[in-house]
Amino acid sequence: MIAVIKNGATEQQVENLIHWFEKQNIKVNKSTGEFCTVLGLIGDTSGIDTDLLEGLDIVESVKRISDPFKKANRKFHPEDTVVEIGGVKIGGGNFAVIAGPDSVESEEQILSTAIAVKEAGAQILEGGCFMPRTSPYDFQGLGQEGVRLLLKAKEETGLPVISEIVSTEQLPLLEGVDALQISARNMQNYELLKLVGKSGKPVLLKRGASASIKELLMSAEYIMAEGNENVILCERGIRTFETYTRYTFDISAIPLIKELSHLPVIADPSHATGRTSLVKSTALAAVAAGADAIEIEVHPDPSKALAGGSQAMDHKQFAELAASVERVRGIL
Amino acid sequence: MIAVIKNGATEQQVENLIHWFEKQNIKVNKSTGEFCTVLGLIGDTSGIDTDLLEGLDIVESVKRISDPFKKANRKFHPEDTVVEIGGVKIGGGNFAVIAGPDSVESEEQILSTAIAVKEAGAQILEGGCFMPRTSPYDFQGLGQEGVRLLLKAKEETGLPVISEIVSTEQLPLLEGVDALQISARNMQNYELLKLVGKSGKPVLLKRGASASIKELLMSAEYIMAEGNENVILCERGIRTFETYTRYTFDISAIPLIKELSHLPVIADPSHATGRTSLVKSTALAAVAAGADAIEIEVHPDPSKALAGGSQAMDHKQFAELAASVERVRGIL
Amino acid sequence: MIAVIKNGATEQQVENLIHWFEKQNIKVNKSTGEFCTVLGLIGDTSGIDTDLLEGLDIVESVKRISDPFKKANRKFHPEDTVVEIGGVKIGGGNFAVIAGPDSVESEEQILSTAIAVKEAGAQILEGGCFMPRTSPYDFQGLGQEGVRLLLKAKEETGLPVISEIVSTEQLPLLEGVDALQISARNMQNYELLKLVGKSGKPVLLKRGASASIKELLMSAEYIMAEGNENVILCERGIRTFETYTRYTFDISAIPLIKELSHLPVIADPSHATGRTSLVKSTALAAVAAGADAIEIEVHPDPSKALAGGSQAMDHKQFAELAASVERVRGIL
Amino acid sequence: MIAVIKNGATEQQVENLIHWFEKQNIKVNKSTGEFCTVLGLIGDTSGIDTDLLEGLDIVESVKRISDPFKKANRKFHPEDTVVEIGGVKIGGGNFAVIAGPDSVESEEQILSTAIAVKEAGAQILEGGCFMPRTSPYDFQGLGQEGVRLLLKAKEETGLPVISEIVSTEQLPLLEGVDALQISARNMQNYELLKLVGKSGKPVLLKRGASASIKELLMSAEYIMAEGNENVILCERGIRTFETYTRYTFDISAIPLIKELSHLPVIADPSHATGRTSLVKSTALAAVAAGADAIEIEVHPDPSKALAGGSQAMDHKQFAELAASVERVRGIL
Repeated sequence: MIAVIKNGATEQQVENLIHWFEKQNIKVNKSTGEFCTVLGLIGDTSGIDTDLLEGLDIVESVKRISDPFKKANRKFHPEDTVVEIGGVKIGGGNFAVIAGPDSVESEEQILSTAIAVKEAGAQILEGGCFMPRTSPYDFQGLGQEGVRLLLKAKEETGLPVISEIVSTEQLPLLEGVDALQISARNMQNYELLKLVGKSGKPVLLKRGASASIKELLMSAEYIMAEGNENVILCERGIRTFETYTRYTFDISAIPLIKELSHLPVIADPSHATGRTSLVKSTALAAVAAGADAIEIEVHPDPSKALAGGSQAMDHKQFAELAASVERVRGIL
Repeated sequence: MIAVIKNGATEQQVENLIHWFEKQNIKVNKSTGEFCTVLGLIGDTSGIDTDLLEGLDIVESVKRISDPFKKANRKFHPEDTVVEIGGVKIGGGNFAVIAGPDSVESEEQILSTAIAVKEAGAQILEGGCFMPRTSPYDFQGLGQEGVRLLLKAKEETGLPVISEIVSTEQLPLLEGVDALQISARNMQNYELLKLVGKSGKPVLLKRGASASIKELLMSAEYIMAEGNENVILCERGIRTFETYTRYTFDISAIPLIKELSHLPVIADPSHATGRTSLVKSTALAAVAAGADAIEIEVHPDPSKALAGGSQAMDHKQFAELAASVERVRGIL
Repeated sequence: MIAVIKNGATEQQVENLIHWFEKQNIKVNKSTGEFCTVLGLIGDTSGIDTDLLEGLDIVESVKRISDPFKKANRKFHPEDTVVEIGGVKIGGGNFAVIAGPDSVESEEQILSTAIAVKEAGAQILEGGCFMPRTSPYDFQGLGQEGVRLLLKAKEETGLPVISEIVSTEQLPLLEGVDALQISARNMQNYELLKLVGKSGKPVLLKRGASASIKELLMSAEYIMAEGNENVILCERGIRTFETYTRYTFDISAIPLIKELSHLPVIADPSHATGRTSLVKSTALAAVAAGADAIEIEVHPDPSKALAGGSQAMDHKQFAELAASVERVRGIL
Repeated sequence: MIAVIKNGATEQQVENLIHWFEKQNIKVNKSTGEFCTVLGLIGDTSGIDTDLLEGLDIVESVKRISDPFKKANRKFHPEDTVVEIGGVKIGGGNFAVIAGPDSVESEEQILSTAIAVKEAGAQILEGGCFMPRTSPYDFQGLGQEGVRLLLKAKEETGLPVISEIVSTEQLPLLEGVDALQISARNMQNYELLKLVGKSGKPVLLKRGASASIKELLMSAEYIMAEGNENVILCERGIRTFETYTRYTFDISAIPLIKELSHLPVIADPSHATGRTSLVKSTALAAVAAGADAIEIEVHPDPSKALAGGSQAMDHKQFAELAASVERVRGIL
């Protein structure tokens, strides 16, 4: 960490600050230039609040040299983490296809989809039961009944299941699912992060629409700080000025997060693009870029979907995608 | 609402769709052009899910002509809403200054700040007790003890108090505060929105860092749909590519939201800019643009603040700001 | 095109507006709803200035249903356009690798790079001679001497060459190059677009860092309106709030532009990411997403490059990338 | 400037790098930490290309501590610069109102506007003659005939005039205007910047829609490096995800640029918001935030404007705005 000192600071003020750092076991290296003095802080600075430091009268700016995330940091944990969801491995060279409808709507819908995606090669089923929707007037999910139907689909097909948790009270209701999903909107719902951290269940953490990669890793840190290392990170598009697509899929986030962290990184091209016609190309791109899994929205009849219809694939489109994905995986 | 039909759609498909709209009491006006057919949907379309519609095979795109928010919409409620916080009115020509520390740290800190900001002209005290922080290693707030100290400051000064609610379980702990604040990170935490909606307490709803104005109004709609119309909207900066400031304060959001909605709109220049030196100019700008209140971070000694120090004003800076604000209000 | 009329407009005003449209051979279809009147405009509306229309007193908003670009629009030109650069075809199923240094620095540098990239499989050589740099104190390119060296490399290797044009006066100096590149910063330098349009040379047009896809296509339209249809579009990253990478590569722009336009679309992962370590993954992703070519920055010794060193590959890295690209192309 | 060295670098490599810096008269201060080595570079580093440095094998990242702009930097030039346009002073406490149509359309239009804005209190007239438009099918300006009409309006009213320069060839045609405007799209058209730098005329440089404040200052540096210090910077909105407004006016850019630079800073709320109804509030905000001038689009009949009609004020609206501006200026 680097602290740049303001021009007007007195010798004594700077000495006091250095002393304060040293009391926290941080070694300080002082460089005095013509226009400013710079303190290089050496040691474990992850506990230092940069906000606090920037608030000091004599400090002009603070820059972190090392990253503020520890448990998620590849520097301290060089090997890939492998997360298991109901026996299916993700990360460390293991690849999986996750598929299912944005929301569970009926027994027939979820069962037929589960059977179809399994046949096409998917290893994990996803289905939303509690739906965070922008409008209070839109469909909000089947709730507990949805969970029952999802678990039935699990039983019938043997596929492990992922479902989204929206609020802390829902954890007991979701006991039977194999992994919990935190959506983009809740990426900084810290109470929820702590709770899923304590649950011990695998967590699929989606990047917020305006979250930097560093913030995504800090949110993973919240979960891991509770002792749960089974965290999978998911790129699902960030908000930009481009309006043809719902979000902009940040493709280089995939190799970049792999450099910074040992956690698995997966891609959700359905929510990112918001358009069925772009899902296949974006999914193949994510696989080619090294994604550890892809999560694809599938519906027996997207034109009748209660949510997410504009981005869902039907069973046939998904089967074609899955076959193409396998071919790309084959040459990596 | 306008639905553009794809070129390949058959006459029969279009008729089926028109029939479906008509069953929902929506009148359809069809225009057939050389390159596409457009359906104009007339009636109450706020219950129609555009996602669903865009998912239909034969639909190329859907555009809302009228806004998807109803209760917050000025069209259906032309007069300004006035929200009262412990007797202090905001909106409809009533202006207030809200001030206090980012987080309650100690009895002395909150009391001295309360006295100072009251003296300088603030009418409402704010102080965070439950703090959502990006890093799990940063200070997380004093919790229930913080609430106790905040209420003590209320008692001693007579100022009504606002404090942030982060999680649904905290509502009983915050019973004594006069208004609940929902921070930017929780703007789309819909369970929390519903809860504060049911609480009946005034709610200060902050715009998410990547939320559009429409989404902010839809989040207000969640609260209002529970019967609580005491909602105050707050512009606190959006995330852009500019890095000198923490966020970019969207000044024209203030007059724009006033056009679109009857709810009061206030400004938080402290979080938006993240730099004390820019708070005064941005606050005066917000007042000149018509903000119904400003919320300013104040700390007895910002250089010792446990959170937000880089953007807090000390008591003297705040007093100067408050005096300037009054002058600008005087000429509006 | 849809024009939404304001509530207060009189019958007569609306009739006048309809009459005005009809004089321009635009058929008008009027829908009168409870809250607003909507005019559907049918016919060739590409000549109508939406700004002008939105400026009318009685108009609330205007929305284009059909795209404002004509010559670049796939609707009016369904087959892929194939652009030839010195005999190398791009588009319509033809794929090419373009490689070379950000800037031509010396005879040895450009020659050794040309030979190396040709050997590794590149079909086109690029090299900047006139460099637009953010700082006036940074290296600005070798200018005319650079062009001479680039043409020498062309002669020795037989590779066609691309070089950037920065200003209208440079056209005669660049007569010998096979294609002109317009960089992101100049995407809306309309005088330059018109000039390269008149030149008849193939043009590689890069998307501006904050340009929407629609604006990119409108800039292509400027070139094509001068009679030059040899336009290649290039995605090279857009500016977002993410700071780990220089820009955010918009991967779904590739399939999306292919839907909207018949022009070839290529990818520049070097400038987009700004980090050598991310170039390979992003390039493979672009190929998997359907890019018609990739443009890769290559330098004999990136650590000594006068510009772009942080994102350039050395000859060995490039050879590995080219081999991987070929494998991905093989399965598409 | 700070250079962070990669973990694997050898002692010898680091010594070579230090030696290289020292040859350029830069003092190096080395801090060796547990996880990385940091070099603090002290001296004039504005000539060092950070790209080049980041390209070095052994360098992990480079951070500038001091700003890369010199001539525009307030640190080296603490007093405000005052720029004169035809005798009207801007900056250093001098405030001006600039007004006029987006484009000169006819003698009557520009004359009537000039008279009206002068009467309302404007000191400078602006009018576009060469118009950069997104679509080649939109109105492109009257060109040389427009300049003639603008100069006629100058003669009749005595107001100095500003007009945009789009291309280097236009300089002789614009000889009679008092100041040259560089629009957002051309902020990084470096050939144009150098040319207006050489011209010696006052330059009104608009911030690009995706330009950071640092880049705006670097573009000013291009003009100033040619010996022309008469540069006025203009905030006119940046591109964000918000779509209700055309751009997002970055209000805190005004006080921030004043901290960083001694150049005058002005506001263009018309282009920023793109909506007449938001111009007044945003203009008053800019004045309250300390802008040295405002530039307002005015048209005798915005509903008939050939460009920019949706954001132009008519004469009456402008007169009201000008009066309000004066009141706000009065209390600053």
